[in-house]
Amino acid sequence: MNAIKKPGGILLTILSSVFILFGVMSCQQGADPVTEAPVTPHPLFEVLPADAEDPEDNIRTPERVDLGHKLFFEPKLSRSGIISCNTCHVVGAAGVDHRERAIGEGARVGPRNSPTVYNAAFLKAQFWDGRSPTLEDQAMGPIQAHVEMDLTPQEAVDRLRQTGYMPYFEAAFPDEENPLTFENVAKAIAAFERTLLTPGSKFDQYLEGNHEVMTEIELAGMQLFQESGCASCHHGPLLGGNMFMEFSHIGGEDVGRASVTGSESDNFVFRVAPLRNVAQTFPYFHDGSAATLEDAVAVMGESQLGRTFNDEEVEKLVAFMHTLTGEFPMIPHPSLPRVQTP
Amino acid sequence: MNAIKKPGGILLTILSSVFILFGVMSCQQGADPVTEAPVTPHPLFEVLPADAEDPEDNIRTPERVDLGHKLFFEPKLSRSGIISCNTCHVVGAAGVDHRERAIGEGARVGPRNSPTVYNAAFLKAQFWDGRSPTLEDQAMGPIQAHVEMDLTPQEAVDRLRQTGYMPYFEAAFPDEENPLTFENVAKAIAAFERTLLTPGSKFDQYLEGNHEVMTEIELAGMQLFQESGCASCHHGPLLGGNMFMEFSHIGGEDVGRASVTGSESDNFVFRVAPLRNVAQTFPYFHDGSAATLEDAVAVMGESQLGRTFNDEEVEKLVAFMHTLTGEFPMIPHPSLPRVQTP
Repeated sequence: MNAIKKPGGILLTILSSVFILFGVMSCQQGADPVTEAPVTPHPLFEVLPADAEDPEDNIRTPERVDLGHKLFFEPKLSRSGIISCNTCHVVGAAGVDHRERAIGEGARVGPRNSPTVYNAAFLKAQFWDGRSPTLEDQAMGPIQAHVEMDLTPQEAVDRLRQTGYMPYFEAAFPDEENPLTFENVAKAIAAFERTLLTPGSKFDQYLEGNHEVMTEIELAGMQLFQESGCASCHHGPLLGGNMFMEFSHIGGEDVGRASVTGSESDNFVFRVAPLRNVAQTFPYFHDGSAATLEDAVAVMGESQLGRTFNDEEVEKLVAFMHTLTGEFPMIPHPSLPRVQTP
Repeated sequence: MNAIKKPGGILLTILSSVFILFGVMSCQQGADPVTEAPVTPHPLFEVLPADAEDPEDNIRTPERVDLGHKLFFEPKLSRSGIISCNTCHVVGAAGVDHRERAIGEGARVGPRNSPTVYNAAFLKAQFWDGRSPTLEDQAMGPIQAHVEMDLTPQEAVDRLRQTGYMPYFEAAFPDEENPLTFENVAKAIAAFERTLLTPGSKFDQYLEGNHEVMTEIELAGMQLFQESGCASCHHGPLLGGNMFMEFSHIGGEDVGRASVTGSESDNFVFRVAPLRNVAQTFPYFHDGSAATLEDAVAVMGESQLGRTFNDEEVEKLVAFMHTLTGEFPMIPHPSLPRVQTP
């Protein structure tokens, strides 16, 4: 009670704190105090969070997530009526379309590769050039883009009203007088997307202290990933997605972040690709030009680290990257509202 | 034992048979012997079967249904790679696309309205003109049609092989040396489609003896449906889908069954539309020209029965048709096989 006032008490308090700290650390890592990690993980690696944090102005409710689920699968949000968010971010295919570059309305091919929607909640910025700070802001882009879904916000809202979505918006945004707005379309989609997480990868189990889970080659890959410098950019909960770096190897017309900031120093600067489930999100890079993980690793070594990985090293790195594949949730096809329009 | 040889025995046998027959009938209808049906159902009405029968050469296994589930959602089965069976037969939207006429590759509009995939297992013939006798035969059509998915069988098979489908075909067709064939694509899709049933409608409950389930107006609609002659064609487990009838009201270039048989007497003959879940499968007719159930009922009265239903009658018939909506199953988005192709 008043231990803190006595010198001995203070020492005890400090000691207790140290023990508590150790306790918390070993608890966080779930480490068995007897076995040591065969490879100490990079200090900036993080277990994939069990849940995503909601922004203050978009707190999830079951109704809002349900609405977002419907909207994510809603082809009426595209001019032709056959393209939905799920067309390019296929929930049953690691959240991507496995094309070099996205295809949209009128079979128009977009400028970049579709990034996965899984775990996008943890990205520090959305899109390859990071032009959107939030999932909410991101969701408004593709619906309007000429090469993607090609609708105006007013057209999107009108279609949803005519299709019978009003009761679902009322339930998802119960305090709003006019709940069916384009902003709320984006909020609901973002709320759904915050549920698209893939926990339980071997990598996460390892970070949590199960050191048996990774094989020798996978561990060697992790060590090389850390020692060669990959982890300098690819860290945090997604092993990427939280900083920008120059990647000029591809060149071409896509100048990346410079098109957002207008600053020449951002020429060919892109968001560092997140590596969660990377073994399944091929092809790679902002233009999809690397067909396989082996290709991507080799290019990264040359262009970002100035180092030629030999075949054995590539094999190790790729083996490690396979440990980043988590458990994908089962997503039902939602029931889509439909009403007769006489 | 030898009762049949005695005259009294024969009478007893006949009497027993009659009782057994009554027993079977009341059992089939699940009728409470005390309450009588307020409206006696048409003798050719049938409860939706709880399961579909497999053809001898396509017996369902979990592996085959699972493969069919994947293929049904597989956009690689279309030239552009964005159209799947589910694009026009949306499992989360009563199995249809709610368009007048189907849209396919190159935004080409097909000649007819997409029929629902739900309960299609019980149709006596597939397509509006009945040109396919089975689900297996049907499934091969849209993949090849220029206005739908626009692939050759060889292209479809090659794509599936390159995408990583081989293990799934091996599991679904374990006794075949070369399991990845176009015929097996169709078989697997058909096997999945036989699981797409919607039991439990109010109508089925009524047939099973729960006479409380239908409201007064719904019963009046059923009575009118039977008395006015609708049920002469719309009967059987799907209230339609088991016979062909002339429907020349729409006219135009689509001559229906004549394009299959080449017989002039089949001009403007179409398969009688099945009415299960009809309240949700708008718009109606082979060209989707009736936007609402009210429109469709009015046209049917005029063209098929030579009778103008007044507003009250239309209301009753539509109320009855709403009782034909069953319970839709929850269909997960399948996990789609994807492999890197260097």
